[in-house]
Amino acid sequence: MNNHNLNVTGAAISEGSEIQETRDIVFPHQQEDVAQIAVDIGGSLAKVVYFSRTPDAPGGRMNFVKFETQHIDQCVDFIYNVLYDAYHGQIPVEKRVIKATGGGAHKYYDLFREKLGVEMQREDEMECLITGLNFLVRQISSEVFTYDERRTEAMQFESTPAELFPYLLVNIGSGVSILKVTSDSTYERISGTSLGGGTLWGLLALLTDAKDYDEMLELSKLGDNKNVDMLVGDIYGGDYPKIGLKGSAIASSFGKVFKTPPEERKNKFKQEDISRSLLYLVSNNIGQIAYLNAQAHGVQRIYFSGFFIRGHPITMNTLSYAINFWSKGKIMALFLRHEGYLGAMGAFFRHAPQNTRLHSFKENFTRIEKISGTSLGAVGTLDEFPTHLSAFPLLKNPTTYNPDTTDLSKSVPLQQYWIDLLDRNLASLTSIVLQHGADNRPVMDGSAVSTDSATRASSFETMYRDHLQRLRREPTAYGVLSVRSLLDLREQCLREMGFNDIFAAVKKVENEAAIASLPALLQRLDALPEDGRFDALIANVLAGNMYDWGSTSVQELLLKGELDFESAKGKVGRPAEFDGTQKLKARMLDPMQLPYRKAMIFVDNSGADVVLGILPFARFLLTKNIYVILAANTSPSVNDVTAEELRALLGTVTDPLISAAWTQGKLKVVATGMSGPCLDLRGVGEEVAASCHGVDLVVIEGMGRAIHTNYSADFKVDSLKIAVFKNPQVAKQLGAQMYDGMVLFQPAEESS
Amino acid sequence: MNNHNLNVTGAAISEGSEIQETRDIVFPHQQEDVAQIAVDIGGSLAKVVYFSRTPDAPGGRMNFVKFETQHIDQCVDFIYNVLYDAYHGQIPVEKRVIKATGGGAHKYYDLFREKLGVEMQREDEMECLITGLNFLVRQISSEVFTYDERRTEAMQFESTPAELFPYLLVNIGSGVSILKVTSDSTYERISGTSLGGGTLWGLLALLTDAKDYDEMLELSKLGDNKNVDMLVGDIYGGDYPKIGLKGSAIASSFGKVFKTPPEERKNKFKQEDISRSLLYLVSNNIGQIAYLNAQAHGVQRIYFSGFFIRGHPITMNTLSYAINFWSKGKIMALFLRHEGYLGAMGAFFRHAPQNTRLHSFKENFTRIEKISGTSLGAVGTLDEFPTHLSAFPLLKNPTTYNPDTTDLSKSVPLQQYWIDLLDRNLASLTSIVLQHGADNRPVMDGSAVSTDSATRASSFETMYRDHLQRLRREPTAYGVLSVRSLLDLREQCLREMGFNDIFAAVKKVENEAAIASLPALLQRLDALPEDGRFDALIANVLAGNMYDWGSTSVQELLLKGELDFESAKGKVGRPAEFDGTQKLKARMLDPMQLPYRKAMIFVDNSGADVVLGILPFARFLLTKNIYVILAANTSPSVNDVTAEELRALLGTVTDPLISAAWTQGKLKVVATGMSGPCLDLRGVGEEVAASCHGVDLVVIEGMGRAIHTNYSADFKVDSLKIAVFKNPQVAKQLGAQMYDGMVLFQPAEESS
Repeated sequence: MNNHNLNVTGAAISEGSEIQETRDIVFPHQQEDVAQIAVDIGGSLAKVVYFSRTPDAPGGRMNFVKFETQHIDQCVDFIYNVLYDAYHGQIPVEKRVIKATGGGAHKYYDLFREKLGVEMQREDEMECLITGLNFLVRQISSEVFTYDERRTEAMQFESTPAELFPYLLVNIGSGVSILKVTSDSTYERISGTSLGGGTLWGLLALLTDAKDYDEMLELSKLGDNKNVDMLVGDIYGGDYPKIGLKGSAIASSFGKVFKTPPEERKNKFKQEDISRSLLYLVSNNIGQIAYLNAQAHGVQRIYFSGFFIRGHPITMNTLSYAINFWSKGKIMALFLRHEGYLGAMGAFFRHAPQNTRLHSFKENFTRIEKISGTSLGAVGTLDEFPTHLSAFPLLKNPTTYNPDTTDLSKSVPLQQYWIDLLDRNLASLTSIVLQHGADNRPVMDGSAVSTDSATRASSFETMYRDHLQRLRREPTAYGVLSVRSLLDLREQCLREMGFNDIFAAVKKVENEAAIASLPALLQRLDALPEDGRFDALIANVLAGNMYDWGSTSVQELLLKGELDFESAKGKVGRPAEFDGTQKLKARMLDPMQLPYRKAMIFVDNSGADVVLGILPFARFLLTKNIYVILAANTSPSVNDVTAEELRALLGTVTDPLISAAWTQGKLKVVATGMSGPCLDLRGVGEEVAASCHGVDLVVIEGMGRAIHTNYSADFKVDSLKIAVFKNPQVAKQLGAQMYDGMVLFQPAEESS
Repeated sequence: MNNHNLNVTGAAISEGSEIQETRDIVFPHQQEDVAQIAVDIGGSLAKVVYFSRTPDAPGGRMNFVKFETQHIDQCVDFIYNVLYDAYHGQIPVEKRVIKATGGGAHKYYDLFREKLGVEMQREDEMECLITGLNFLVRQISSEVFTYDERRTEAMQFESTPAELFPYLLVNIGSGVSILKVTSDSTYERISGTSLGGGTLWGLLALLTDAKDYDEMLELSKLGDNKNVDMLVGDIYGGDYPKIGLKGSAIASSFGKVFKTPPEERKNKFKQEDISRSLLYLVSNNIGQIAYLNAQAHGVQRIYFSGFFIRGHPITMNTLSYAINFWSKGKIMALFLRHEGYLGAMGAFFRHAPQNTRLHSFKENFTRIEKISGTSLGAVGTLDEFPTHLSAFPLLKNPTTYNPDTTDLSKSVPLQQYWIDLLDRNLASLTSIVLQHGADNRPVMDGSAVSTDSATRASSFETMYRDHLQRLRREPTAYGVLSVRSLLDLREQCLREMGFNDIFAAVKKVENEAAIASLPALLQRLDALPEDGRFDALIANVLAGNMYDWGSTSVQELLLKGELDFESAKGKVGRPAEFDGTQKLKARMLDPMQLPYRKAMIFVDNSGADVVLGILPFARFLLTKNIYVILAANTSPSVNDVTAEELRALLGTVTDPLISAAWTQGKLKVVATGMSGPCLDLRGVGEEVAASCHGVDLVVIEGMGRAIHTNYSADFKVDSLKIAVFKNPQVAKQLGAQMYDGMVLFQPAEESS
């Protein structure tokens, strides 16, 4: 089997890989056949997960599509097309296999066999749900969220727990199953209730004129359950503090009906109120039963899934309220953004042969799928990253680490500011794309992408603007909304339209110019006494960091040609409260302290930044016999230097000290695993992880990496965060001025 | 305050009592006022509990009456009459107080005040429920039952637990409260659900044409939930063993509705099926939530109360099923026969001043009250026994002790046999009543009882026959159905009609005749060698036990004059398997064994039985220096000798040995606390309990005490059960022949 001939391919992609990883996803089931497609056919929706790959690009893509079950034919046609394309019209008999779960896997077995000519291998529904959940919770950041409408932003995302098990999975379909999951391979159905989505739907069908489930939920939004339910206050005239009940608590669902004379009942109770009351009844009850099971089994985390949830705000809010109420605030209900695809995802993973692995995934919102018409969020395709990503080993608190300095979804003004800023900058960026992007080629599954760069640039502009528009309306639609996520999304859109590296030419010019200036700069620095040299090195890093096409403000300067290295130096302010230069110098030059042995520097931009700012500083460290690891982006992003580019650059450096260290391996370059202007230390590439041993100083440079992200990060070793504030909002937020330099040195013992 | 002038009186009845009891009911609240009446006004019923007393009789009576809340005026009138009667029309201002609980205690406060001129002191509903439950569970045998329609007799009664706390009380009114009760004075509302009786009622009111709650329940009996609910089998085609679900389990309540096209829904689903499904939904859900709370709190017993229960078989069965299902058979739902009066009972007890006590209570079915039209059982008034009753201290296993040899409710043929037998004998007994009962006078609140003995005898016959008729239809209506309960009920009916001691004259004649024969008998016995004398003593006890007006078979012999003491001896068969005479003799006469020190003999009939059978045997024990306690009935029953009669009798015995022992106190008589022909060792009188110290031999004599009851009882000390089988059914059941003698000697170490 030649995977590389397949547009859509199976999961057996690391066969023959030399790297033996232990923390990758090992598929729980062992089967001979490798399948590309899995489907979860529920009562209302059929969800399809399939894996695609573009021959010349690394990694692959997990795609999501859904169909209405009543139009299952469309689903069958779609799957046929995926297979047809994958095998160029010649689907081998042994590949005519799809994995299937959900009730419909039984019902439509014959249909699929006859119409599609494929065998449907049915997989246990509960086990698929669990496999899907385990995968998503571990792999996808912003997957899990809590929901509470009393908060500014109802949806708030949870970080991946250090230990996933045990947890409860409460799956609310027609009925409710409560599973206690204790490991990747063990679970028990500990409870359930017949009062599920089917009950709500069924009773509402009998009691209202609504045509479908969504219409019923819409009705409920207009209703007031107080007109139907008997409240504690209706009985006791207020609270009943003796037993801890508030007057507003529901004492008896529908309790006001029997108190009403029979002849008045049918007219008195409005459909809206009945809908609201029933929704509360079912949600509260499920929440209570889930909590009681968690309590009885000593479990702290409860995940909810199933069509009853499916992103419906009002049901999530009621479930959350119930869990919060019964647990006295100790437990929050947990929901999943990909909730609708848990089963299909789990079924997908049933295909793979022993030891077949997939690498890490990141969500990509250029292709999005809404779970249902009323759902809150959308899900992106999951792009496979070519290597395994893992948490940065030097993080002090990996489970509480949050890359983002600001969760924009919690502040409406900040959301608006950043979305507006990026929106305003979009035209300018598009013109850069047009100017420089002609050479870029589509790399992902590009059937829909024009090869004409002008058309693609325009599509990029539209696509990103559409995303920004959506995020204005639904700030949490794609997970945590942060400067990082907005910038990453822009990179995704560029790549999706085939613009992998629009700054390639700019970077090349800037790198060459900087390399040319390097010898003279090093000479000037060497002439300084050590004390002054150190100060100058720090000033140079700050000046270099001004060369940032990612900053809208600086972009304008660069476009106007108003920035040179010396004028850059002059622009950088040096407020004392952000200046740890002397503290770092004291630590570095103190002969009484153990010298550092190995520094890892996360670098930022090409040109003056990395060549004139970082390289001289690295050279200084090398003179102190400190090994230096330069960590640079894996994939291009604005004018950020990539690991590949940096390696090439170092080969051209003539300075004997740098050149020798590079040859001897005392100076190395590693790829961070990043493909955007920020740094998410929850998932760094294997090269970073493998190089951390012995590192006793972490340096993070640049606004994207040290201010928008990691500003509050704590490390097990000493750290230096160095950058220039090139955005007025974030400067103000953190108490700085525009173009102030930030030199934050934090010894390990001062981190919390 | 002069209690004895009151027909209806408060609870302060043992003021001035000389006996300091510690285990009596100490009222939890201390109030100045003593009230006679308490009322629990619920949404549909108002329940009244009031205490009455007849001037010349010991003890008092707790009465139950209920009214429909919508006719609350009737309740007000009734209470006024009770008070009016109690105070002979002159109700003192300070006595115009009633205790009240339930939602209506607020609503009707003004009505009671204005119309009745009484103050309604409102008491907390939950606390009243708990107080009422604690009282009933401890005091009333056959109070608590489990319910399972899969059993021959759905209702089965539970014995009082050794330790009542902790328990859960699940009160199902409009909504549901779940209380964890940890002591007489501490409880917590740990949970609840708004899905209660009001929900069922309310939804059914919207979905069916039924006029009231009972009509809805009737509808549900005709329905099949399978037509509305989605079963596990509907989804999976059968069982889903992987997660332990049977195909017949309800997967989704009302789950079949939304699968049905909207235009067909309103016609397809029948009201009966909807009612059944909703009843299952609410009951199952309450059962599950109750179980989960029990599990979370480690509680083993769950009592259910509230109008949702109120004796409705179908709701009890569903709750039981749910608790059984979720606990995997480990917990049974517990129900209470007086469930409807828990609140009123608890409110009643809120009245009494500090240290005021009531004595023990026994249920009396001559005045019965059905809780609701569809309820299974009835409740009798609770008659206060003049002293405290407690478990017989020498019982080996007081918590598992069951007085009755046969639970007739578990066997339809046995029920029929015994009810038929007593029914057939009723005419004969009534003629005895007519012949001997003229002197008996009404002793209880006798306003409705004629003083004409013929009328009363006829009323007695009708009353008892009516009871038997009811028990034919509802064998568990009054609790455990046993020979004991049937005989006790007959005694209650006699007493209720003023016939306290219809055999008084017969007993007198027989006692006098026997006393006259005693000297000669003793002379003959003394002339025998010891070995033969012992055998003769046992034979005499058996012969004496033939003189039993309580046995229908023997009654006929006695009426025909066909029984004398010698012919009685000849009638008694002596099968070896029932004859422990030699074993007992060996133990008694073995010089190597420690001699007995004190024997307690539970005696049976007057005349030949006690005088010629028991007294010579007791005299033999006295010669062996064994103290003898004769335990006889407190109140008359058939020709059983009472403690009072036996004391008088012993005063007339001329035999020097007996006479001396009687005088010296080596021979004593104690009252058992019984007022029927059987012996229920769960509640014996204080005299028995106080005399047990040092007893090392328990003798139980007679069919009622040693065969119908206590046949399987185990004791901490050696025991002798001695009687003649005078009923063919029980003889056959236990493997004996009619008129076989039973001499069961069981050393303590052989008891289990």
